[in-house]
Amino acid sequence: MYVVKSPLPEPDLKTVSGALQGALVDLVDLALVGKQIHWNIVGPRFRSVHLQLDEVVDTARTHSDTVAERAAALGVPPDGRASTVASDSGIDAVAAGWIRDTDAVGVLVDALGAVITRMRERVRATADADPVSQDLLIGITADLEKHHWMFQAEHA
Amino acid sequence: MYVVKSPLPEPDLKTVSGALQGALVDLVDLALVGKQIHWNIVGPRFRSVHLQLDEVVDTARTHSDTVAERAAALGVPPDGRASTVASDSGIDAVAAGWIRDTDAVGVLVDALGAVITRMRERVRATADADPVSQDLLIGITADLEKHHWMFQAEHA
Amino acid sequence: MYVVKSPLPEPDLKTVSGALQGALVDLVDLALVGKQIHWNIVGPRFRSVHLQLDEVVDTARTHSDTVAERAAALGVPPDGRASTVASDSGIDAVAAGWIRDTDAVGVLVDALGAVITRMRERVRATADADPVSQDLLIGITADLEKHHWMFQAEHA
Amino acid sequence: MYVVKSPLPEPDLKTVSGALQGALVDLVDLALVGKQIHWNIVGPRFRSVHLQLDEVVDTARTHSDTVAERAAALGVPPDGRASTVASDSGIDAVAAGWIRDTDAVGVLVDALGAVITRMRERVRATADADPVSQDLLIGITADLEKHHWMFQAEHA
Amino acid sequence: MYVVKSPLPEPDLKTVSGALQGALVDLVDLALVGKQIHWNIVGPRFRSVHLQLDEVVDTARTHSDTVAERAAALGVPPDGRASTVASDSGIDAVAAGWIRDTDAVGVLVDALGAVITRMRERVRATADADPVSQDLLIGITADLEKHHWMFQAEHA
Amino acid sequence: MYVVKSPLPEPDLKTVSGALQGALVDLVDLALVGKQIHWNIVGPRFRSVHLQLDEVVDTARTHSDTVAERAAALGVPPDGRASTVASDSGIDAVAAGWIRDTDAVGVLVDALGAVITRMRERVRATADADPVSQDLLIGITADLEKHHWMFQAEHA
Amino acid sequence: MYVVKSPLPEPDLKTVSGALQGALVDLVDLALVGKQIHWNIVGPRFRSVHLQLDEVVDTARTHSDTVAERAAALGVPPDGRASTVASDSGIDAVAAGWIRDTDAVGVLVDALGAVITRMRERVRATADADPVSQDLLIGITADLEKHHWMFQAEHA
Amino acid sequence: MYVVKSPLPEPDLKTVSGALQGALVDLVDLALVGKQIHWNIVGPRFRSVHLQLDEVVDTARTHSDTVAERAAALGVPPDGRASTVASDSGIDAVAAGWIRDTDAVGVLVDALGAVITRMRERVRATADADPVSQDLLIGITADLEKHHWMFQAEHA
Amino acid sequence: MYVVKSPLPEPDLKTVSGALQGALVDLVDLALVGKQIHWNIVGPRFRSVHLQLDEVVDTARTHSDTVAERAAALGVPPDGRASTVASDSGIDAVAAGWIRDTDAVGVLVDALGAVITRMRERVRATADADPVSQDLLIGITADLEKHHWMFQAEHA
Amino acid sequence: MYVVKSPLPEPDLKTVSGALQGALVDLVDLALVGKQIHWNIVGPRFRSVHLQLDEVVDTARTHSDTVAERAAALGVPPDGRASTVASDSGIDAVAAGWIRDTDAVGVLVDALGAVITRMRERVRATADADPVSQDLLIGITADLEKHHWMFQAEHA
Amino acid sequence: MYVVKSPLPEPDLKTVSGALQGALVDLVDLALVGKQIHWNIVGPRFRSVHLQLDEVVDTARTHSDTVAERAAALGVPPDGRASTVASDSGIDAVAAGWIRDTDAVGVLVDALGAVITRMRERVRATADADPVSQDLLIGITADLEKHHWMFQAEHA
Amino acid sequence: MYVVKSPLPEPDLKTVSGALQGALVDLVDLALVGKQIHWNIVGPRFRSVHLQLDEVVDTARTHSDTVAERAAALGVPPDGRASTVASDSGIDAVAAGWIRDTDAVGVLVDALGAVITRMRERVRATADADPVSQDLLIGITADLEKHHWMFQAEHA
Repeated sequence: MYVVKSPLPEPDLKTVSGALQGALVDLVDLALVGKQIHWNIVGPRFRSVHLQLDEVVDTARTHSDTVAERAAALGVPPDGRASTVASDSGIDAVAAGWIRDTDAVGVLVDALGAVITRMRERVRATADADPVSQDLLIGITADLEKHHWMFQAEHA
Repeated sequence: MYVVKSPLPEPDLKTVSGALQGALVDLVDLALVGKQIHWNIVGPRFRSVHLQLDEVVDTARTHSDTVAERAAALGVPPDGRASTVASDSGIDAVAAGWIRDTDAVGVLVDALGAVITRMRERVRATADADPVSQDLLIGITADLEKHHWMFQAEHA
Repeated sequence: MYVVKSPLPEPDLKTVSGALQGALVDLVDLALVGKQIHWNIVGPRFRSVHLQLDEVVDTARTHSDTVAERAAALGVPPDGRASTVASDSGIDAVAAGWIRDTDAVGVLVDALGAVITRMRERVRATADADPVSQDLLIGITADLEKHHWMFQAEHA
Repeated sequence: MYVVKSPLPEPDLKTVSGALQGALVDLVDLALVGKQIHWNIVGPRFRSVHLQLDEVVDTARTHSDTVAERAAALGVPPDGRASTVASDSGIDAVAAGWIRDTDAVGVLVDALGAVITRMRERVRATADADPVSQDLLIGITADLEKHHWMFQAEHA
Repeated sequence: MYVVKSPLPEPDLKTVSGALQGALVDLVDLALVGKQIHWNIVGPRFRSVHLQLDEVVDTARTHSDTVAERAAALGVPPDGRASTVASDSGIDAVAAGWIRDTDAVGVLVDALGAVITRMRERVRATADADPVSQDLLIGITADLEKHHWMFQAEHA
Repeated sequence: MYVVKSPLPEPDLKTVSGALQGALVDLVDLALVGKQIHWNIVGPRFRSVHLQLDEVVDTARTHSDTVAERAAALGVPPDGRASTVASDSGIDAVAAGWIRDTDAVGVLVDALGAVITRMRERVRATADADPVSQDLLIGITADLEKHHWMFQAEHA
Repeated sequence: MYVVKSPLPEPDLKTVSGALQGALVDLVDLALVGKQIHWNIVGPRFRSVHLQLDEVVDTARTHSDTVAERAAALGVPPDGRASTVASDSGIDAVAAGWIRDTDAVGVLVDALGAVITRMRERVRATADADPVSQDLLIGITADLEKHHWMFQAEHA
Repeated sequence: MYVVKSPLPEPDLKTVSGALQGALVDLVDLALVGKQIHWNIVGPRFRSVHLQLDEVVDTARTHSDTVAERAAALGVPPDGRASTVASDSGIDAVAAGWIRDTDAVGVLVDALGAVITRMRERVRATADADPVSQDLLIGITADLEKHHWMFQAEHA
Repeated sequence: MYVVKSPLPEPDLKTVSGALQGALVDLVDLALVGKQIHWNIVGPRFRSVHLQLDEVVDTARTHSDTVAERAAALGVPPDGRASTVASDSGIDAVAAGWIRDTDAVGVLVDALGAVITRMRERVRATADADPVSQDLLIGITADLEKHHWMFQAEHA
Repeated sequence: MYVVKSPLPEPDLKTVSGALQGALVDLVDLALVGKQIHWNIVGPRFRSVHLQLDEVVDTARTHSDTVAERAAALGVPPDGRASTVASDSGIDAVAAGWIRDTDAVGVLVDALGAVITRMRERVRATADADPVSQDLLIGITADLEKHHWMFQAEHA
Repeated sequence: MYVVKSPLPEPDLKTVSGALQGALVDLVDLALVGKQIHWNIVGPRFRSVHLQLDEVVDTARTHSDTVAERAAALGVPPDGRASTVASDSGIDAVAAGWIRDTDAVGVLVDALGAVITRMRERVRATADADPVSQDLLIGITADLEKHHWMFQAEHA
Repeated sequence: MYVVKSPLPEPDLKTVSGALQGALVDLVDLALVGKQIHWNIVGPRFRSVHLQLDEVVDTARTHSDTVAERAAALGVPPDGRASTVASDSGIDAVAAGWIRDTDAVGVLVDALGAVITRMRERVRATADADPVSQDLLIGITADLEKHHWMFQAEHA
């Protein structure tokens, strides 16, 4: 059953769908990691980082929806199931249990950094194949880099 | 590091934290499954079910936050990481790729049914140990059973 | 055609569905009575009671929807038709025509009192059979008793 | 007790008050029937019709309030009690229990058709007696005919 | 300077512009009288009537704007100056100073009654000359008669 | 396929459907002309007229929807396609390219005047055939005449 | 009947109540004059000045309410009746009929100037007698002077 | 620990901080008294006064926050603890238990009168020492005197 | 004067009214303590804790209203006067003057802990006597325990 | 009259203005076609597609405004008149009269497909000539492709 | 060109215009300094101070507009150009580049302190010359002193 | 102290940071110039241009924040201080004092033209170095060119 006709020729489609599927997995995991730390953080900066993490989660959820619907719009069924996210995410595993605020900020600096590196590769890879998808990925990168700056500034 | 003092004695705490952790995993997976089908559904009832699934996702996200914060409030760090969800969820694995609307409704009937069965066990299990947590689980069960009815009514 | 599978065993279901159907009829009639007096009240306290009655109507309409959808979620088709309400309501018949403000307040004190007595019986009856339905009925009773207090305070 | 002075002479008042009282009963029953089917409908179009019915209920409730308060403003106490609605409504009795979506749409086509026929007679009857009341009835008829079109279009 | 071309022939225009100018003066005065009593009322029903009067003022201000702009749209400059209102209003002069709540309600019953009588004459007068203006006057009359009912109901 | 049953007898229906179809075409074209000038106007009054034109467009779009759905509700399929609008509109063709503000105001005075003349004929034509449709056309005419006044006042 | 006890001694009260009554009359008339010109203005600046005048009317209506309720709070019944406004206002009489935009702006410059001069006298007069009332009058003067600047700037 | 540097010299600071601390205690108690009567009032005017009291409570809560933060801004730690309020408030003790509506209005007339008298002394005392604080106290007095008028008008 | 008839028998009523009166006093004091520290806190975490305290105050104020009106609905007049709160509260006295942020967080941990302990006793005490009141107290306890977790997490 | 100076050199301007004018015509026609089918659709999926079409119309109207104002900003007067749309649109002519829901979905699949193909050509054509305009066209294409996906998914 | 007539005599005008122009320059610079530090702050308190600074910027922008328009209303053209701000501001120059959070708080304590000192002089200077302008400056000083307290409290 | 790690290599970073810093200075100055003329404009088009200028100021303020935070996200501290703006802005100095409306429009045409020319150079310069930053600059250019068109259209 191949229901949605793609506006892209086959080789371009392969490139773009790979980029979108990768972005989807990273963003879903970023939302899960963000919530995990939102719930487990402790320390004097608890409230401030607790609130800030929900903004990361909002960004990640909104963009994962955009990216998945973009894939579907190109005729490629997106895969955001828990097992796929658990195996393919570019974010390092987070330890279970309470986490101190200073460590929590460090985890986010690393997680965002890892996702941004991969996103910039996706921006380059999709430039010729589909400027529409590239434009979405550029916007996502800008948002992630802004969050990254803020967590780095707090980590100074 | 055992930072949040629990208002419950040890044996009760063990019961309640098991119930909350189980509920958290089911609800996070329900949100992921809901989105997965939201993106991959096809067929004449696409739009109607596509919108309905976002309401399930909203319910699941809101309640997973409530449940996780309740566990934290009882001094138990919640675990909502992708790998935990992938291994512990009570919802059967969903196949990748496009899914017809009729099948999509059936998947939700089953997924909600499975979660509700486990939730009712948790309601019973927590009655003596912590009526506050039980009250949350009762409210969640009521919402899930309402969604369940609607998908069953559509599946008739 | 028995379309919605009930999560309750048969004897419990009979108890709970009786309670919910009874509550539905009382709440629909309370909304009709509230509007009837909203339109027919006269006297110096006209405006104050006229406005207060719309709050009772809002409460009754919202809860009648909750109760009916709860019955459906348990696999029991609810019945809120005019003839059923006319024959089964627990509220005494209201006379037609203009009604003085003092009498209007008295009618509401009686109507709310009658419904509350029956609701408290339903709370008791459903405790073991279905704590989820009981929880809804408890919330409804709390709202009705608040309205009852206000009309009694005005009737002092 | 004849408290509100009518701006209309006696024969005109009789015509107009009959039309308004009839409209009130039809509209209250339309709201009850709309809710009854909103709760009992089953089948693949469940959600779509379930939502659409609440829009009919909103229309009916808003206009029943307008019509009743118009009667009061003309010095005639309106009667919207359950027993009056059960005996005087122009809508055929609806069967109890679950109802398939196709049948549900048919019930609404018939119910709206019956009310519209009576409303158009009331528009004619009140033209000379009270153009103010006629104007309200014209607006109500326009809304009901729009709902009627939609259910007919769905029934095609 | 005759800047706005009227869509009406001369004799019709004379009839309609007289009706609109009369309605404008009555409505502006109704707003002034409503505020005057809003500020000067005393007695146990102070708060209830004080609030109710602001709803009359809102109705009067909104409709005076509609009526004046309708006159302008027909090419007739409206006149809502204080001296014109003071000399041409159909509402009896109100005494200066504090006014008891019971008397205040009576003043409104009379003022609204006087304006409604004149409005109904204007509805009759404009039926053939301009159905568009008549439609506005019908809507205004309906609103005024609803306020009139409420003050009469309170005066019972 | 004659799916929607008309509440009107055949000769009345013909009169009314002609009036509604004509109104639809005029209103769709008024929206297109309003936008055309909104984009092409130049001169010192640019901003003021640019904004004012969007209010005309809003009025025209809202009423074209009302009129088309009214036709459908009477069982007559409406026609608002570009080619139909281009051939049947009552508004004179507008020249392409930039247009000075003074000329722009004049174009609107003429366009609104032409549509109003035809609308008033439709109001007369539908009085006996269908007071419900007439009521809609009266409301539309009132709005258009208000816009007409404003552009005439600016053109003085 | 001297119902509201004044917090001010007699001589101070006389000064303050004179100032407030004068301000009330000026502000009510400013609202009436603003509306009069809002309806009768013609010329290329129609729309811009038409909208600006409604902001003056809003200011005048809001402040007239504040001033009247302040008088009542001091135990002095305010007088805002049409005849009082017509005889006591500090604004020169406005001619009836259409008014060109340039003249309209001039009328407002004069009207606001006249009211401001009187307000500044009231600010001075109430400084010792009642700083609370003076504070209200200062705020009103600031708002009026801002409107005055804008009309002067447009009149340049 | 004297952390916040005051912009005022010592003697002025002493005057102003006394006025602000006194105002804080009076306003916190006014909110507590307002709620106490809001809950305990009975009689035909129950609903009207019940609602009116919540407006007094809102005013008192908002202004107590402003006054306390103003004290802090001047370098003086405010004291709004229950024991301080119980011992220093200017409002007479209120009896426990149900209170009739007429008596309730009288209690508020007295309570507001007592607070206003003290506020006017504070306005005088702070005029030279700190016009910024005085300005806040003037605004508070105006709001309290408006409430006072309303309760007096109701007590007439 | 025993105006409101209780739906509970005498011994149950005594139990429940004691629980509600105790909860009322604790919640009113929690709001006062929260504000006291909101105003007096100093240190690097000032802003974060200052904002967090207003959320505690909102919770305490909302629930104190619910609890007091529940008591009234059961026929028992609630007592929330300053002197009652000062003598009966379960929260330890707070010192006057500036308080460092670290100490402020500790005060809240203790205050919330003390209230929660007493609330859990009230939940137990009311289980049989009145499940409706118990349900309210359970909801309040859940909210307080969530705040408690957050302050404990910050105090780690 | 060449009033707006273009920031682009002549050959680039020609390329870009052609692309924008083409996009404008397609988008205006898409809005007209969307409304045409919104009004004429019949069949069981009536309501679902009826609502979905209004979202297409919103997208098309918003983007047609953006595109036309972009052309004007580049110094090129846009042309969105009915006759231009009728002759230049890239969407196939739609038949008049009622249309079944299945066919309606197919018409939208085709119409969106045709516009998307042309938009992608415009994206390519404007890449070098004006990246600012290209960026707008990319965003429009993304939105249209999302709608296209949804209608294709429904057509499976 | 001296277009706006001043309500003040010449010597008073000179005093007041000097105060307003000085306030304008200080407030524009406060907004620029607030943004500069909002962007360049680093350290663990980054987010909390980053957000707090935007509240200072909002205050400064709102009041700079008020002050400038007040000057214009008095007939004096305000000067808020970059070069004027750079030369006349009362705030010490801020160093370029990243700034640690502790230093950032110190910069704001000093900047607000400097502006407040000058504002208090302006309040004194304008007392006799123009109480209307003085009232604005008092309100501005109150807001600035509240921000000052908060930064001092955080600096403790 | 080099706290934020840049995702860009050194030569690219130099190019991009130069473009962003230049854009920041131009946008801050555009906001200051926009306000300066907003306050000093006189003439018949005062109100229209006065309002339009606030839209330019909003655009400039929003984009200056985006640009500065983008620089920070790339590890480069932005500089938006008054002295930097005064010396580096690309907008010509504006004369102090009142300015006629025609001249005001001309100043904005020139200011926007100067900033747009520089922005287009920055778009070109950043294409290879950082497509994320380029995308922001493209969006800013589109908004500025739309404002430029409007002021040119008004200047025709």
